Amino acid sequence: MRLEISALAGLPEIRPGDDLAALIRASAALENQPIEGPVLIAVAQKVVSKAEGAVVDLRQVEPSAMAYAWAAQSNRDARLVELILRQSRRIVKMDRGLLICETQHGLVCANAGVDQSNVAGDDFATVLPADPDASARRLRSMLGCGAVIITDTFGRPWREGLVDVAIGVSGLEGLEDYRGSTDRHGRKLGSTIIAIADQLAAAAGLLMRKADGCPVVFVRGMVWQQAEGSARALIRPREQDLFR
Amino acid sequence: MRLEISALAGLPEIRPGDDLAALIRASAALENQPIEGPVLIAVAQKVVSKAEGAVVDLRQVEPSAMAYAWAAQSNRDARLVELILRQSRRIVKMDRGLLICETQHGLVCANAGVDQSNVAGDDFATVLPADPDASARRLRSMLGCGAVIITDTFGRPWREGLVDVAIGVSGLEGLEDYRGSTDRHGRKLGSTIIAIADQLAAAAGLLMRKADGCPVVFVRGMVWQQAEGSARALIRPREQDLFR
Repeated sequence: MRLEISALAGLPEIRPGDDLAALIRASAALENQPIEGPVLIAVAQKVVSKAEGAVVDLRQVEPSAMAYAWAAQSNRDARLVELILRQSRRIVKMDRGLLICETQHGLVCANAGVDQSNVAGDDFATVLPADPDASARRLRSMLGCGAVIITDTFGRPWREGLVDVAIGVSGLEGLEDYRGSTDRHGRKLGSTIIAIADQLAAAAGLLMRKADGCPVVFVRGMVWQQAEGSARALIRPREQDLFR
Repeated sequence: MRLEISALAGLPEIRPGDDLAALIRASAALENQPIEGPVLIAVAQKVVSKAEGAVVDLRQVEPSAMAYAWAAQSNRDARLVELILRQSRRIVKMDRGLLICETQHGLVCANAGVDQSNVAGDDFATVLPADPDASARRLRSMLGCGAVIITDTFGRPWREGLVDVAIGVSGLEGLEDYRGSTDRHGRKLGSTIIAIADQLAAAAGLLMRKADGCPVVFVRGMVWQQAEGSARALIRPREQDLFR
């Protein structure tokens, strides 16, 4: 098996209301990148949010007392803190300037995915797509590709640096279960469930960053069993989590 | 930029004392896989441990009272539990059958990296290489490739499924710091340090698993700044970790 991973270089700046699938399709055609068939396409959350209009005008956000207090402590914009709190259903940790949140989707990440990078002006911020699986599903159906993964860049406990993970999935199972299989010595593989969608997101992330902010990456050569899938499978339920 | 990721198919079963670099070199030659120059090679910890003789005969391991107690609770081999405890410098969590350890290297993972998969017989287990950076350095120098990453498959809080991470690095910086750079709108990228070695490990992991247990994977087309590097950069110091 040989994977080929390439970035779409010429995607224009995405604005609210843009037809993201049409823009991807047009750029891919210009760059001779076939997208139909067993191609897996990773799309950065940022452009999905922008196209879907998941961009908030902070001038419309009235900070709460907690938002003001935390903003003062952590030297941040109180309106941004308020937006983060509104995007959360639970605060996992609020310490040393960090706000680790459980989002409405159940994702655990810093700032509930609220972000100001690649957004024009201090008065705007993007939030995560309301239903990233549905976003992935729409893109897949409009692109005719094998699978779509919506990725975002998350930190994690214990290890330094950010990695890309899958927050939306369509066309494959996010987890691949090797528990039935055996190793070379016939031993059952005990607890080997691989977060295949996250590994794909990380692989795509290599190019998204390196290629100077290319939010669309193609993976070719991957062999997988087609399924609708969902990124929800990648979220550990709170009651099974030893670190929440 | 276009990455090409391919697995080495024909590597034989590795035994203690084997010259892993020579075996990789021979298989790569047979498979027409050039390894010199700007090739990044990911090698699964398991074969590095085996070649280095980091395989423990459990018949020589005398369990402690704690090992017996935990083994009884979690339905495991007390000798294996004892080995896990001896490979740890601290227990991070010991709950619901899970033993999350801080290894002698500072890595936080289940069972301190002790593993019985792909090991012959119930009386043996592999442990992590004593110095995975040094293992990576040796392999890189003997293979003449651009970089070597030793990978292992770790779980993580909050998310289901395992992902591959880098536990040994030679030839690149494990973290890539984008904090100096600006986005398309001229905004400073606040806290964007990417765990590039972990993203590479995850990308390689896609093939290691898929290609039926291929422990050696080549990444070609990657552009990076050559540096000695170390996987220690990827370990968050305990005093900066909100979840330890």
